[in-house]
Amino acid sequence: MKVITTKEFLNNFANQSPSEDTDRKIDQIVLEIIQQVRHSGDKALYEYTEKFDEVQLDQLAVTEEEFREADKQVSDSFRQALREAQQNIAEFHQNQMEKSWFVNKAPGVMLGQKVTPLEKVGVYIPGGKAAYPSSVLMNVIPARLAGVETVVITTPPQPDGSINPHVLVAAKEAGVDKVYKVGGAQAVAALAYGTETIPKTAKIVGPGNAFVARAKKWVYGDVAIDMIAGPSEICILADDTASPAYIAADLLSQAEHDEDARAICVTTSKSMADQVISEVRQQAAKLERKEIIDQSIEQHGSIILATNKEEAIHVVNTIAPEHLELMMENPQEELQYIKNAGAIFLGAYAPEPLGDYFAGPNHTLPTSGTAAFASPLGVYDFIKKSSIIQYSREALMQAASPIQTLAETEGLTAHSNAIQVRKDDSDAKA
Amino acid sequence: MKVITTKEFLNNFANQSPSEDTDRKIDQIVLEIIQQVRHSGDKALYEYTEKFDEVQLDQLAVTEEEFREADKQVSDSFRQALREAQQNIAEFHQNQMEKSWFVNKAPGVMLGQKVTPLEKVGVYIPGGKAAYPSSVLMNVIPARLAGVETVVITTPPQPDGSINPHVLVAAKEAGVDKVYKVGGAQAVAALAYGTETIPKTAKIVGPGNAFVARAKKWVYGDVAIDMIAGPSEICILADDTASPAYIAADLLSQAEHDEDARAICVTTSKSMADQVISEVRQQAAKLERKEIIDQSIEQHGSIILATNKEEAIHVVNTIAPEHLELMMENPQEELQYIKNAGAIFLGAYAPEPLGDYFAGPNHTLPTSGTAAFASPLGVYDFIKKSSIIQYSREALMQAASPIQTLAETEGLTAHSNAIQVRKDDSDAKA
Repeated sequence: MKVITTKEFLNNFANQSPSEDTDRKIDQIVLEIIQQVRHSGDKALYEYTEKFDEVQLDQLAVTEEEFREADKQVSDSFRQALREAQQNIAEFHQNQMEKSWFVNKAPGVMLGQKVTPLEKVGVYIPGGKAAYPSSVLMNVIPARLAGVETVVITTPPQPDGSINPHVLVAAKEAGVDKVYKVGGAQAVAALAYGTETIPKTAKIVGPGNAFVARAKKWVYGDVAIDMIAGPSEICILADDTASPAYIAADLLSQAEHDEDARAICVTTSKSMADQVISEVRQQAAKLERKEIIDQSIEQHGSIILATNKEEAIHVVNTIAPEHLELMMENPQEELQYIKNAGAIFLGAYAPEPLGDYFAGPNHTLPTSGTAAFASPLGVYDFIKKSSIIQYSREALMQAASPIQTLAETEGLTAHSNAIQVRKDDSDAKA
Repeated sequence: MKVITTKEFLNNFANQSPSEDTDRKIDQIVLEIIQQVRHSGDKALYEYTEKFDEVQLDQLAVTEEEFREADKQVSDSFRQALREAQQNIAEFHQNQMEKSWFVNKAPGVMLGQKVTPLEKVGVYIPGGKAAYPSSVLMNVIPARLAGVETVVITTPPQPDGSINPHVLVAAKEAGVDKVYKVGGAQAVAALAYGTETIPKTAKIVGPGNAFVARAKKWVYGDVAIDMIAGPSEICILADDTASPAYIAADLLSQAEHDEDARAICVTTSKSMADQVISEVRQQAAKLERKEIIDQSIEQHGSIILATNKEEAIHVVNTIAPEHLELMMENPQEELQYIKNAGAIFLGAYAPEPLGDYFAGPNHTLPTSGTAAFASPLGVYDFIKKSSIIQYSREALMQAASPIQTLAETEGLTAHSNAIQVRKDDSDAKA
């Protein structure tokens, strides 16, 4: 883990080039898969699942029997923990519910905004080595709260054709309508365009590998997507009062995700930097996922030494981290200076895993600096708005002149005609 | 203008294939432009402006002198109409303002959501044949209300190097910081990555041609974008009480936009269908933009004859129109059945141009069926949210067991360690 100055960091950052045009090879594969799925539907899904997941499936949808089987395989403590988390997540997201509204702006003038849930939503849950029941909760609960009619999951099957039981139990608890055994770009294509078995959805959410991410980018516009997730990151802003052991533990919890994960500590204290490095080394040695952690810390871990607090906060806002921990004496006071962050953890007892699993806010967060313009996943991701306009004849006549002036300025005379036809209608003048 | 049945419409609709992989040629040009702008900055902008707009510019930014000059060139009636529209737009969008919130969920537990405006926003305003001061207002006002610090416009210069004075006056009135004389994909690239003159922005909004739309799709992810706009459409749902003359006028106002615009009337009344067709023919003959209108109506205009109201409403929700007019006896009652529409105009005196220019709701709306998942442009497009989590030591200790259970289920043991380190810290237990 290296220590760098603010200046070094900012120089580096400015020269980082977004990955935009480096994914041509993946794109070729992904576009071919999308085309095949659009063309051949389920048949393509079975073929790709055989090719990529090495499983021959009899059917795509998980059966009730499989759900019952999964239920027997999970521990009571897991089920209990899941339910506590579920309740916290639901409670937090209820604060995000939006209502339709109407105003009577003037006599004869009613304006408003109608809120409608999306009709169908697809959630992608990664499979492979790990299972992520927490992602099931985080993606499904806000959709359900929004009032989405149909929520389905796609997730790649394990080599024996089954789905991880923890994922299935979480899906059942969260009230998912169907779980389909299909992963990769083919799952995204199916959710975007529909097949015989899998419904075309209005929005696709959930994390995935590079193929899933590029497929989401390609179908974007035909359907909505949550975001294109990049590597995950944590940034800890620490003053002298922070515990180096806590900082190290939290950096390591981020680093274990994968080799690309970024763990960054920003501080003005040289001795804090040294202590954190020493703690990282000691704690990492004892952790199961040491190999991943070592690589991640080696390649992407850093401690940025700022000359003062203002500079430190500027660095944080420039990074726009997915997770930001404020390990400071008065974290609530510092909050006002934070412009860009997905989730902000205040003080010594809000470690990132509290937010990943349990506290209630969503763990699907904007990564790779996109917190500068994007938000955590929320109920607002599963609704859309329609504007409402109603005028009386009298109100429209009063507005006629400015409307016609503006329409004619833009050369849109048929727009002006739509007003004129109503002005000229002597029958209506009664 | 042809009359088709619901069944014919739905069959047609199901076979419509999204354009996703037909834009390769445009993509090649657009990707080359993006790369050049990222590499050469302003120099590339001057070169592309010379190549595409056939103007050699001395500087990119519109000067104060040019703003003053524009001010002299617009009429008082235009300025007056613009200000009335501006006030209505601001008043409507004020209803969309969102506040940060916090809850004390339990002793020692504080959760919340912080709302922060985007820092810099770029608005693309088309140039060429037409000028769109109304688009300036519709894009800039919600950004300003949201609290965006810097709002800049890019718009292609006219052959003499100037910008349409109505656009400049609207920009000044709406409080834009800078207007740059650059259009096309090069403008999008500049706003996405920054050049010596043009700031890198967090989000790019505003309409544009196919090159602008594809460029927005390509930079999406590195910056936010509003949407990828397709052809514009109107759908009028009319019962027996509607005026065929009004319907025709409103269909034509949509048709004059361009040859790809879609004007659709859905009705259960055969005689209404016949009368609308006759009115369209009569009114179109007298309109200035007759040529565009004829092409648009010929290619994309249709009247869908439904067998009953439920079927008619199903058609509307399937189209998910950008603009929907409910020309019905009790339009407010029908509103409950409308799931997908960008803006909904109720009754005989809410013609689309009222919404395009004046009433207050935004005229940047989801096109081409994207109203199934997207919303009108609004204040919510110019803010982002951060989750807030704060726990006391005691509250974290109570939550420790479920967090560790879930982390270990997912195999993320360093996550569990971040809790354990705090549990084991005997100093803190005091």
